[in-house]
Amino acid sequence: MKPKTNIVIIGTGNVATQLALALHEKKFNIIQIVGRKEKDVLLLSKKIKTAGSTNFNNINSNADIYILAIKDDAINSLASKLKLKDKLIVHTSGTVDLNVLKSPFSNYGVFYPLQTLSKNKKIDFKNVPICIEANNKKAFNLLFELANTLSDKVYKINSEQRKIIHLAAVFACNFSNYMYVIADDILSKNKLSFDLLKPLIAETAEKIKSNKPFKNQTGPAVRKDTKTMKAHLKMLENNKSFKKIYENVSDGIMKTKKKKK
Amino acid sequence: MKPKTNIVIIGTGNVATQLALALHEKKFNIIQIVGRKEKDVLLLSKKIKTAGSTNFNNINSNADIYILAIKDDAINSLASKLKLKDKLIVHTSGTVDLNVLKSPFSNYGVFYPLQTLSKNKKIDFKNVPICIEANNKKAFNLLFELANTLSDKVYKINSEQRKIIHLAAVFACNFSNYMYVIADDILSKNKLSFDLLKPLIAETAEKIKSNKPFKNQTGPAVRKDTKTMKAHLKMLENNKSFKKIYENVSDGIMKTKKKKK
Repeated sequence: MKPKTNIVIIGTGNVATQLALALHEKKFNIIQIVGRKEKDVLLLSKKIKTAGSTNFNNINSNADIYILAIKDDAINSLASKLKLKDKLIVHTSGTVDLNVLKSPFSNYGVFYPLQTLSKNKKIDFKNVPICIEANNKKAFNLLFELANTLSDKVYKINSEQRKIIHLAAVFACNFSNYMYVIADDILSKNKLSFDLLKPLIAETAEKIKSNKPFKNQTGPAVRKDTKTMKAHLKMLENNKSFKKIYENVSDGIMKTKKKKK
Repeated sequence: MKPKTNIVIIGTGNVATQLALALHEKKFNIIQIVGRKEKDVLLLSKKIKTAGSTNFNNINSNADIYILAIKDDAINSLASKLKLKDKLIVHTSGTVDLNVLKSPFSNYGVFYPLQTLSKNKKIDFKNVPICIEANNKKAFNLLFELANTLSDKVYKINSEQRKIIHLAAVFACNFSNYMYVIADDILSKNKLSFDLLKPLIAETAEKIKSNKPFKNQTGPAVRKDTKTMKAHLKMLENNKSFKKIYENVSDGIMKTKKKKK
């Protein structure tokens, strides 16, 4: 990809921020940041020393690629208003179909980085899988080049596959993080430090690098240790939500064991 | 601790194996491995070049410390049969009370390594929190020295606290691993590789090192993106167990956000 590819980033959230930083670092020419909130636009455009705008009717028309990194629900309605018919436009969503960009665009695609991104934690994209899809070969090749500049792991993934990957990612990332949240809550209510669990969490995540996760399953449920499970449920008596999760997840673990044996 | 402290390890499971390997490496004198299954006893005793026995009436009486690394349910009944009244005996369980060793012993304690252990994945205990407890000062000091030889993180934790930590660990380790199991299941049923999620899982676990987990929460539930959540539930229609977990965990995430704000 020519280093002077011009890019406009629409959005100022976690994905927009991390993509802007990474692309800027790789010497792409981000010619404009566009967003609703002036404060956020200013912050991000200043970070990468470029122009910013809160006016969606005033988008710079000289870019080669327009990256829509905005809320899933807003992609369709915003895209239909953009006066960039012949430009290459992509969204970054795990769940939104490629075809929401069909009208009014003739070159469109998806650029989905499979990672949990926060505004303030800089990500090295080298190891981040990027799932791309486009409506034509030329657009695909351009996106592939762009993705490949950032990452060694670029995959051609269609919209159906992407939705499945996103669902799996919700379990693997969002839900496992919520398990940490519950653990933290249980400990802090008892004045115990969450630091105690940090080596355990690191090792649990480390283990999947070399084994299928069901092979790593430990704990009372996989041992069918009903006495311990009963004691745990009793300890969770005052939190119906945690208790229900404990029951359902333990049931799931007990079933998995049976199936996989 | 004198390097020639004599230790007998009773048990041949994940905890027994990893403790035996680590203590052996630190030049402790493990004089015997005792267990029910001959094959497992042979395997472990051979690994650390020591004696093995399957006869619980034939336990070497020359040890300074006896480590009972066996199933929670078996601790009480086995301990009561051991003819080692004046010896220091410890169990390694997260859930079993110190006092189950009260009769017939006069020196007893708990030595609970807070880590997920497997027989075949060697663990460096340096970073593993070890929670210890004992019925008298002398026993405590001996256990502290032992633990401190293996780990930089030794904590005095009473039985009530240990049960709470164990419950939190079930969420943080066993249940987060089950979230990986579900993700793997969803992907493999659709012929997609679990490798796609490995960087995401690593980053999710990495993030808790610098932030409280509720601050790291991302995904549809924390954004209250009901459209995506509905689509996900539809995709899980054919798996009632996964669907229930999706609903309960998402509910929990939505509630947490409200509470913490």
